[in-house]
This record gives sequence, C-alpha cells and structure tokens, in this order.
Amino acid sequence: MYEITLPASPTISAEVAYDVRERIARLMVDCSAAIDNDALEEWPEFFLEKCLYMVISRANYEAGRRAGFIYCDTRDMLIDRVRSLRSANVYQPHLYRHILSGPRILSAQREMVKTETSFAVIRTSLPDGAMTVFSAGRYLDEIFLEGASARFHSRIAVTDSDTIDMLLVIPI
Amino acid sequence: MYEITLPASPTISAEVAYDVRERIARLMVDCSAAIDNDALEEWPEFFLEKCLYMVISRANYEAGRRAGFIYCDTRDMLIDRVRSLRSANVYQPHLYRHILSGPRILSAQREMVKTETSFAVIRTSLPDGAMTVFSAGRYLDEIFLEGASARFHSRIAVTDSDTIDMLLVIPI
Amino acid sequence: MYEITLPASPTISAEVAYDVRERIARLMVDCSAAIDNDALEEWPEFFLEKCLYMVISRANYEAGRRAGFIYCDTRDMLIDRVRSLRSANVYQPHLYRHILSGPRILSAQREMVKTETSFAVIRTSLPDGAMTVFSAGRYLDEIFLEGASARFHSRIAVTDSDTIDMLLVIPI
Repeated sequence: MYEITLPASPTISAEVAYDVRERIARLMVDCSAAIDNDALEEWPEFFLEKCLYMVISRANYEAGRRAGFIYCDTRDMLIDRVRSLRSANVYQPHLYRHILSGPRILSAQREMVKTETSFAVIRTSLPDGAMTVFSAGRYLDEIFLEGASARFHSRIAVTDSDTIDMLLVIPI
Repeated sequence: MYEITLPASPTISAEVAYDVRERIARLMVDCSAAIDNDALEEWPEFFLEKCLYMVISRANYEAGRRAGFIYCDTRDMLIDRVRSLRSANVYQPHLYRHILSGPRILSAQREMVKTETSFAVIRTSLPDGAMTVFSAGRYLDEIFLEGASARFHSRIAVTDSDTIDMLLVIPI
Repeated sequence: MYEITLPASPTISAEVAYDVRERIARLMVDCSAAIDNDALEEWPEFFLEKCLYMVISRANYEAGRRAGFIYCDTRDMLIDRVRSLRSANVYQPHLYRHILSGPRILSAQREMVKTETSFAVIRTSLPDGAMTVFSAGRYLDEIFLEGASARFHSRIAVTDSDTIDMLLVIPI
C-alpha cells in the first residue's frame, strides 16, 4: 500500500514565491474544472503515473485507516474509473461544483509541495435543479512540480462526513 | 445579438504575471462585494459601456441558446436594472453571499483576459435567517485591462440549475 | 469598549505587492484551518495580545450596535473561551468547514492592513453526517504585519443571518 508521508498540518503555512503559488493555485482549479465541466477524461492527466487518489472520511483518516470510499494508486486506475463511469451511466444525472478556499502550503521542498485545501462540493440534481452540499472537507495533496507544470503525486480527499448520501460515482 | 467569443475551456489554464492575476482577483471579489454589500449602484461600474451581462442555465448555454434569465448588453441596461430593482422592492428581503473559487485564466492576450470562475451564492432570508444555496455555477468572463483597472467586457453567469427558485431580482 | 476604525468598504479594493497579499492569504486560511482541524488551542495565536474578536449579525452591525454573539477584546479571553469549550463539551459533536473567497484589501497603510473576506461555514453533524450551511457572511479584519508574520488586531465576523441555529460554541 502507498506510504503516506504527509506532515501533521502546521499552524503556520509556508511562504513561497509567486511562481510556486501560482502553479499550485492553477492545479487546484484546473483539476476541479475538469470534473465540474464534465471533462472527466482529462482528470487523470493531473496525476503522475504512479500516484495515489483516495477519498476517505475524516474519522477513518484520523484513526489511521487507509480504506476509503475510493482508493486508486496508479493513473491507469483513474482512467479505468472514468471509463466505467461513462459506460455504466446508471446514476441519476447531477452536476458537481467545487468551491475551494485558497491552498495552504504545508511544506515546499525542491520540486515537492505538500498542501491542504478546504473544499465544498455543491451538487445540482437534474432535471429538478435541487442543490445540496454534497461533500465538504479538505484535500491533502503532494504535488510534484516539473518545469511549468504541476501534477499530483498524491491527493487525499478527507470528507468531514462519514457518509456519502448516494453511490459516489464522480471523483471529488 | 452580442457575439460570444469565449474559447472552449482549456484543460490547463494560462500562466500569468502577478500584476495581471491580482487585477483579475480584485475585480472578482470587488464585483461580488458590491452586490453582497447592497451597493448595487456601483455594480454597473465594473462593466464597460458596451458590454454583455447574461445569466443563463448550463443546459441552455451548452445547447447554444443565448436567451437567459437575464440579458443586458449595455451598461445602461445594468443601471436601469438596478434602478427598477430599487423602486419595485416587492420581493421578500434577503441577502446574497458570493463564495468564489480562484479564477482560471483561459487566455490572456494583450489587454483582454478570458477567465472562468466557480461560484456559489448563499441566500439568507430575512427575518427568519434561513440559509440556502441559491445558485451554483461558473462565470465566463472577458475582462478588459486598462492601466490599473479591470472591467468586464462580458460576464456570463452559467448556473448549474435550470431553475431559479424565485424571481431573480438581484444580479448574480 | 474597543474602538472600531474600519473604513467604509470601498468599491475598488487596494492594489498590493505579492508579499503583502501572500501574508494576508496565509493568515486567512491558517486561522480557518486551526478551527476546522480542531486545533483550537492554536487559534488565539493568530491574534495580538490586545485585540478584538467579535461575531455579530449584519443587522446589529449596520445599526451601529457592538454587542454580538461573541465579544472578546484580549487574547486571554480567546484562550479562556477555548478552555471552557474543551471542558464543557456538552454540545452535539459537529465539524466546521470554512470556505473563503479571496480577501479584499480595503486599505494598506504601513504595517496595518484592513480587509474584507466573504465566508461560508459548512457544519457537518456527527455521527449522522448531515451537512448544512451554518453561517455565511464576511470578516472585517485589521491585520498587523510584523516581519514575516501577520496577526489580527481585530476580526469582526459579520453574519448575514440574525440567528445562529444552535448555541454558538466554536468560533467562526
């Protein structure tokens, strides 16, 4: 199993130069946009080939458990996930909207930056248009900077709630 | 009818210098604050004289329809809208609160910057204080930079939901 | 009583250099993270020793009243508040999640920066996991910059709603 090396969240986040902060900020909103704009096929591209993507409840995460709602540890698994999601297509149509606070830089060492970012996901059901807060929590990310680009080495979405009110089909 | 020339949303947003990003970020929060702080008379000032302001559902927008909940294509129409809103004043009192993700720069060419920004609007009804997610979606903006200032050439608020649960009286 | 010297919110927020904006942005998310991550003991550290922390409804704030849901004017009062909160512990368990828009710089004079930041707080009840918008509004902050750090001289959380739907035990 993937070894998670995230530091405990420090009280004061790290100071970084503009070019680092901008790349992090862009990765955050670009990745969310791929999901929200239904460009899911692009979503795995934000991850390194060998990576971790996990969605886990806060209670499980804090108890040291590493079994989440979703667990993928290669980019190919993410691609498979999107493919099966497209072909299955049995769920009630709905849209996601990620609203993110600014990222906190937990540490920045050379090309590896660790961040924590609060999120809320608003889900709109179709065709009735009902909106609900689908999930709230924080991303714990390890981001690898290479040249102008930035990709997730790991992304753990820690949800405040222990339950997901329907089959979790679209990534958070 | 105003010709909309927004590019398809690219997977990776553009890299821009700090001064550009800061002007964009300020325009976003300043415009929202004018609405949320009930300084609506200032809101049209964030638009060029010849401009577009449209609120449209995602389904209509993606189907290529350009008829929205609101359609204004001059600043004077925005001013009129605020004026009639102030004089009519027949709606149940409520407050808006815009929460925005960071803007994605879709393209930046000379003084024209195209951006995409996710939003959620929390509405608080008075006097009972009930809060609901009133709208969620994204702004598609064309922003004209002139000196230190930035103004909307066009702002299209694309709402995830097809319905607005009451008469839409205050701009999004 | 503490004298509040916040300026009227200007239409156009101030332009500031990257290092100022970054310190403000970090303070905002670091302070929220201390609350959301249940590191409440660290939360008073974001305030100067002589400071103001107030939570007040928008109606009361705009009417010039200065009596809020919470009123503390020293850091020691904040420390006491956390201590009693830890020992009392009678409330139903729930988690907070702050989602913040970008800060608006209202003014920046030497080491004192005044800002306005919209927030929404999502509360997740445990163990059922129900999520609601607990509070929405804006922070009006006076921030003192000293070297690389930034601390609140005053923080006024102005809530859009007049009511808080339960005993307000955790700071906003």
